[in-house]
Amino acid sequence: MDYNFYMNEALKLAKKAYKKDEVPVGAIIVKENKILARAFNLRQSKRRATYHAEILAINKACKKLKDFRLNGATIFVTLEPCAMCLGAIMNARIETLVFGATANKENVISCSELAERCGLNHNLKIIKDVQKEECEKLITSYFAEKRK
Amino acid sequence: MDYNFYMNEALKLAKKAYKKDEVPVGAIIVKENKILARAFNLRQSKRRATYHAEILAINKACKKLKDFRLNGATIFVTLEPCAMCLGAIMNARIETLVFGATANKENVISCSELAERCGLNHNLKIIKDVQKEECEKLITSYFAEKRK
Repeated sequence: MDYNFYMNEALKLAKKAYKKDEVPVGAIIVKENKILARAFNLRQSKRRATYHAEILAINKACKKLKDFRLNGATIFVTLEPCAMCLGAIMNARIETLVFGATANKENVISCSELAERCGLNHNLKIIKDVQKEECEKLITSYFAEKRK
Repeated sequence: MDYNFYMNEALKLAKKAYKKDEVPVGAIIVKENKILARAFNLRQSKRRATYHAEILAINKACKKLKDFRLNGATIFVTLEPCAMCLGAIMNARIETLVFGATANKENVISCSELAERCGLNHNLKIIKDVQKEECEKLITSYFAEKRK
């Protein structure tokens, strides 16, 4: 699987979020080399605490497959998922999580620790640092602009 | 605030989930003594990994208040939230989480540990064991019936 190709697709979505003045995060769900769902963060525009890119992408993919399980799927996210989104990825039994930028906050539980300790008998494969620089640059410039 | 009253309302919702052959969990969001949202688990009926009672209730409450923040709100859930739902509760900045039955699984991160380690500068107040027996009985009998 071409991780860089799919992460670039997720980056395009993150840029759409940026244009809407949302924290720029994009997500794509791929299964059997087909893109099942694309989404970006819409928390502020739609005024919903839960409308992160990953949740929206998972909902779309479930709708498409008419299934609450996404076995065998891979999710590409430009930023390391928060606890809510990592929990959703586990609940959906997504096989692999690929992310770009790391959240890097002190005392914050890592995706891998949370995946192990969320009580589901499901082994999530996690791959990080894909297109890391591009993903980080987008987030950093968004917050730098915000601080102005 | 009358915790038992609101938890009983959440229990009524959990029983609706039970009738639909869903894991029986109900949630209610209250702010200033008004019920903002009621929801129950619809994961299987709607075929969405994310359609837990808490997520659906948070979405409804956000829609009602036209806000992605639910400051000052209390969420009542019949069962201890999973990682996804606890993350959503934190993302929505809900003030207080009240739950009935405890998930009680080995090696599973507790709500209080996850709330502290999910990277948000938000102090969630957590109250457990409200209508504990009733909540547990419902979950236990659902799974006992399933095993038959």
